[in-house]
Amino acid sequence: MALIVQKYGGTSVAGLDQIRKVAERVAGVYGAGNGVVVVLSAMAGVTDQLIQLAQEITDHPHRRELDVLLATGEQTTVSLLCITLESMGYPARSLLGHQAEIVTDRTFGQARIVGIHAHRIKALLDQRKIVAVAGFQGRDTKGNITTLGRGGSDTSAVALAAALEADVCEIYTDVDGVYTTDPNLCKSARKLDRISYDEMLEMASLGAKVLQIRAVEFAKKFDVPVHVRSSFKEEEGTMVVEEETDMERVVVSGITYSKNEARITLTKVPDQPGVASKIFTPVAEAGIVVDMIIQNTRKGGLTDLTFTVPKSDYPTAMAIQKDVAETIGAEQVLGDEQIAKVSVIGVGMRSHSGVAAKMFTALANENINIVMISTSEIKISCVIQEKYTELAVRVLHSTFGLEDEKL
Amino acid sequence: MALIVQKYGGTSVAGLDQIRKVAERVAGVYGAGNGVVVVLSAMAGVTDQLIQLAQEITDHPHRRELDVLLATGEQTTVSLLCITLESMGYPARSLLGHQAEIVTDRTFGQARIVGIHAHRIKALLDQRKIVAVAGFQGRDTKGNITTLGRGGSDTSAVALAAALEADVCEIYTDVDGVYTTDPNLCKSARKLDRISYDEMLEMASLGAKVLQIRAVEFAKKFDVPVHVRSSFKEEEGTMVVEEETDMERVVVSGITYSKNEARITLTKVPDQPGVASKIFTPVAEAGIVVDMIIQNTRKGGLTDLTFTVPKSDYPTAMAIQKDVAETIGAEQVLGDEQIAKVSVIGVGMRSHSGVAAKMFTALANENINIVMISTSEIKISCVIQEKYTELAVRVLHSTFGLEDEKL
Repeated sequence: MALIVQKYGGTSVAGLDQIRKVAERVAGVYGAGNGVVVVLSAMAGVTDQLIQLAQEITDHPHRRELDVLLATGEQTTVSLLCITLESMGYPARSLLGHQAEIVTDRTFGQARIVGIHAHRIKALLDQRKIVAVAGFQGRDTKGNITTLGRGGSDTSAVALAAALEADVCEIYTDVDGVYTTDPNLCKSARKLDRISYDEMLEMASLGAKVLQIRAVEFAKKFDVPVHVRSSFKEEEGTMVVEEETDMERVVVSGITYSKNEARITLTKVPDQPGVASKIFTPVAEAGIVVDMIIQNTRKGGLTDLTFTVPKSDYPTAMAIQKDVAETIGAEQVLGDEQIAKVSVIGVGMRSHSGVAAKMFTALANENINIVMISTSEIKISCVIQEKYTELAVRVLHSTFGLEDEKL
Repeated sequence: MALIVQKYGGTSVAGLDQIRKVAERVAGVYGAGNGVVVVLSAMAGVTDQLIQLAQEITDHPHRRELDVLLATGEQTTVSLLCITLESMGYPARSLLGHQAEIVTDRTFGQARIVGIHAHRIKALLDQRKIVAVAGFQGRDTKGNITTLGRGGSDTSAVALAAALEADVCEIYTDVDGVYTTDPNLCKSARKLDRISYDEMLEMASLGAKVLQIRAVEFAKKFDVPVHVRSSFKEEEGTMVVEEETDMERVVVSGITYSKNEARITLTKVPDQPGVASKIFTPVAEAGIVVDMIIQNTRKGGLTDLTFTVPKSDYPTAMAIQKDVAETIGAEQVLGDEQIAKVSVIGVGMRSHSGVAAKMFTALANENINIVMISTSEIKISCVIQEKYTELAVRVLHSTFGLEDEKL
């Protein structure tokens, strides 16, 4: 019999009715003779409500204490699930982060798991108990409560699956699985049966919000098979697994997009050593993450330098660069918030050439101008004007033959 | 400088405004150079809401899991208090029951504290931190979360004060202190400056809901001075302390009453060995606590036997006794829910005679019939008809000279 870790997100445990459905699904898997560890998020909206409550006190709640407050969310759902399972006649025990000995560093609000002592869970499984673990939370080495940041329950689940050497980690969510692109935007988007960890990492970081990126990193590192599936349907979702030989037959697995970035250009920057440092050091010091950077050398020792930042940091970054431009003698600072990034992802690119050329041609055929380009081993991203986003996604989806053949 | 444990009840932390008032009071005491440990209840009504939520799933929620759920209530208030204190510039750290190492037995829902390892709290106090401990909760020796039952935060506070050898344990509540009787019922009721542990025990068990009885037992056992006072006023409340010589000048300290009991009488019970056991064993097995028992021997080897039970257990107890009466050959089972118990309490009774006679005379003068009598070293209780309760309390209050002289 298998050992299965199941994780249910906030919408799957949003109320007592939903929790009962989760309990029935868990009971089914347990009843078939499997060992089951269930990882739960807080009820949908609860974490945000708690943050809001704390922010009514102060804009910057003490981080250690905020984690104590937030941890109540998952504590509530695991106890309610166990009460439900017990009332149905199934033996169930809840464990909070510290009881499950999910040990993290001390970065309150964004803690990273450093280890899991799984002996208590294993002992409960040996007694044929269903174990419900509060996701999103852990403890540091001194016993302080920590939380893992937005989407942290995914990471809890994958880390537990790794520590327990579970056969599979099932991530139950409100979508069916991982799609070739956003189905809301492209009707012919197709659900993938399998996707590699590396592709999923690129997907996650580019805006497909199915699975937290750190959870995928964990899964890849410890080789945990992850099954992303719907908590409202029985059918299978998408397996996120180690890259397999037959995966390479597909060159491109998915198209993603992001509208959350803005572009900043400094024109006529003196092309001298140390200039890039002067431009990017104050941005980094402001805690702003720069994504793409492009520099075009021009005549006369002057260059244009363009980079992208998250839209939310755009005003701060612009203000910083206006000071920088004066200091380094650049001509002007131009900004553009009306941009989008579309990306083509696939492990097949490793062995196939011509993907970039095919992408650029497809966009050119629609008169979509490419503002910036960046590439990795398994990804090509183009920055375009925001208004072309939907068109670009659909064209690329079709160009790389990702359509659902059933349609 | 003193070490002070303060406990605030649910109405004192009912919302962010009230929590800010608590923070200001705590900050004042801390700012004067004292060490402060704050014990909090859940927000008023929250524990009941959580119980109700669990009971929507099942009438008998799994007790271990219910405690996990209930423990979120105090977790919320301690974190909010610490966020508030930190936002005001005061260093504050919350500790949950398990972090404060409040170790209990494994009686979920009604756990008893078996020990407190106070080293972590002491270390935080040494660093001049304000420590906020979640009341009502602890952990068993295996790390399971337990709760102490209704009013358990009082016990948490007194136990912490004992473990820390605090100078005083202040219980902040929505009343000014301990009164000679219920001020809602008797306008001339007077706030007591001091009361002994023993008197307070009698008061608590007889219906003055100021302080949980187990908290008083703890305070007496470890000689913790307890100060019951209002969280909405600055003035001093009532000190609950070891019996002192000058206390004996007052013969009677207070009058209490309870309307929560019902009376059951078995008539013409064969007066044989083993009969009492046959009557009371099934009642005990049903988990019903019997308070007073009176037996009158009559002629012919037959006796009437009367006892009181909590009103909520009355239907069950009546049903049991009807079976019992048949088995043992008693004539009939009579019941009365329209009764009340009025009690006169005072350590001075130990050295003064005539209190009982004075009490009976006072009631007789008002034509109040005494149905049952029970006495302890420092208490005399009479069961009367319920409709005379208010009259009896006022008459006894006046008879023993307890009026507020300011009125």
